[in-house]
Amino acid sequence: MTKKLGKQTYLMQRPPVVRAWAAVGGKKEGEGPLGASFDLIEPDTTFGQDSWEKAESRMVMQAVSRALGKLSLSPEEIDCVFGGDLLNQCISTTFGLRETGIPLLGIYGACSTIGEGMLLASLLVDAGTVRRAMAVTSSHFCTAERQYRFPLEYGSVRPPTAQWTATASGAVILEEDGDQPPYLRAATIGVIEDLGVTDQNNMGAAMAPAAAATLSRFFRDTGSAPEQFDLIATGDLGAVGSQLLVDLLRRDGLEIQSRHTDCGLLIYDRDHQDVHAGGSGCGCSASVLGAYLLPALRDGRIRNLLFLPTGALLSPTSVQQKESIPGIAHLIWLSHEKEGII
Amino acid sequence: MTKKLGKQTYLMQRPPVVRAWAAVGGKKEGEGPLGASFDLIEPDTTFGQDSWEKAESRMVMQAVSRALGKLSLSPEEIDCVFGGDLLNQCISTTFGLRETGIPLLGIYGACSTIGEGMLLASLLVDAGTVRRAMAVTSSHFCTAERQYRFPLEYGSVRPPTAQWTATASGAVILEEDGDQPPYLRAATIGVIEDLGVTDQNNMGAAMAPAAAATLSRFFRDTGSAPEQFDLIATGDLGAVGSQLLVDLLRRDGLEIQSRHTDCGLLIYDRDHQDVHAGGSGCGCSASVLGAYLLPALRDGRIRNLLFLPTGALLSPTSVQQKESIPGIAHLIWLSHEKEGII
Repeated sequence: MTKKLGKQTYLMQRPPVVRAWAAVGGKKEGEGPLGASFDLIEPDTTFGQDSWEKAESRMVMQAVSRALGKLSLSPEEIDCVFGGDLLNQCISTTFGLRETGIPLLGIYGACSTIGEGMLLASLLVDAGTVRRAMAVTSSHFCTAERQYRFPLEYGSVRPPTAQWTATASGAVILEEDGDQPPYLRAATIGVIEDLGVTDQNNMGAAMAPAAAATLSRFFRDTGSAPEQFDLIATGDLGAVGSQLLVDLLRRDGLEIQSRHTDCGLLIYDRDHQDVHAGGSGCGCSASVLGAYLLPALRDGRIRNLLFLPTGALLSPTSVQQKESIPGIAHLIWLSHEKEGII
Repeated sequence: MTKKLGKQTYLMQRPPVVRAWAAVGGKKEGEGPLGASFDLIEPDTTFGQDSWEKAESRMVMQAVSRALGKLSLSPEEIDCVFGGDLLNQCISTTFGLRETGIPLLGIYGACSTIGEGMLLASLLVDAGTVRRAMAVTSSHFCTAERQYRFPLEYGSVRPPTAQWTATASGAVILEEDGDQPPYLRAATIGVIEDLGVTDQNNMGAAMAPAAAATLSRFFRDTGSAPEQFDLIATGDLGAVGSQLLVDLLRRDGLEIQSRHTDCGLLIYDRDHQDVHAGGSGCGCSASVLGAYLLPALRDGRIRNLLFLPTGALLSPTSVQQKESIPGIAHLIWLSHEKEGII
């Protein structure tokens, strides 16, 4: 039985194994520093479909089938899939998974989705309720711009704090305990944090308090410290939100700067790719996880990673109605080792 | 440890107890046959807020605080909440729960949400992972019309197959095993079914195949038969979808007509309230559950209920892009007894 530590943290007793994963990306992601490590880069932003929304669904399907393919599994061998995305009513997930027949548990956590999905999958696997579960998510620059901001054809100018929604999808398969790292060792469920940020061109700032709250909660619940982990990777705080996170934690006496990174800073080369404060979107953290973090955990280049994708729980309607932007961050601890530290 | 039966069904080993619940509704729901049984009826469609979206969030908050109040619990005593709704990016849930500080696992299952939430909550409670979890959802006629169809001011005419989105919210608290019914005995995770229906004014027909698939899967996985349950309640198939469900199951040799009902048919008086094919929306099944089904299960008027909320996984964008409407239905078996039948 998974052990509950403190208010929000769950320590796995038979740590589930992340058995396989896949990362799919678009042209810009292919040109970024991790481009060569994606399982598939599709230079055509439509992915051969007649709309960007259908393109995003196609990406989901490709990520799922590539992850399955690595283990020579058929969809029937997956007990359930946790999936969601940024599009209204999560249609890229729905239509992407429609043909698979995998029992579907739809989730919504904005850009924290891959974290929430892996957290839920690991709790069910650790409990022995299911043997093998999947988590998947996606985002697409063109669908997100059209839905959240302006149609691309307007050519609107972006402020420096704005981030670039990644065209990417990531899928992950978790299984009950085995002997190949990475292991999912613990998870912390996030709580909504809202410090009143209303600028939707500065979502990193809106999400940083949630990341800080989840991270300090994890350290408190487990009695561990930042120094015990080689890397702390947030999802898509970008340059602005990352600095804010470091500052917020410093006030709590937690120093993470030297070991912190952000998937939104890893996915693009900010000096040579025009992405302002960095990447964002559900697919950003999910694809960086598959293209870089999980392979490094498997071969031991990274031994202990705190991975916490961050979500901004706004909608265009809530922004128009002058609501502030609530944030959430779910944390999972991924490790090269099955035991130790806690 | 929860026992997995067949492909999609989970049999609880220490059936979680549905300890408390609350149903909140609007004026029309108050005038319906179950009106007197709601915990709160608010005749003002704005719930005192300055937008309908904020009204819907307010309803979520009210349902949650009334459910908590019945057990004299504070939000800190809830391990986690599963919540979601129909609004883009699930904002009524997010803003409704923002102040509570309860660890949030956002879900998206369209109108199947309360079923998905209770299913996930019960799996975590039965495993001992959490002690007490909550599920909540909502819908609002005015927010749904504006988002899915036309602004109300257009006064557009609705065809007879159309349903009426309920202005309602339902919240439920599940706890580890105790000695007061109702017990959540088993759950079946739904699979997407899509038979190609494209008429968004006939969502009952789009969702009926999913309800049929989940129900026949439950009977197959558990080796049980319709006669063993007093009532089978779907979420919001309405008049058209309900008949289709009965017909589809008949082809599989399953006869449910005499024991089938639909929350969309229970919530309004179709003869005297202008709701065409019946009620719909996440809040429809969630509030009928709280206002009628759970009280009847507690006092034994209903002994065994198969409750399966149904979701239509469309969006206005997917409809505009000529996609068909995928459906999903999650099933939970609620019982006055802790054991028996299976």
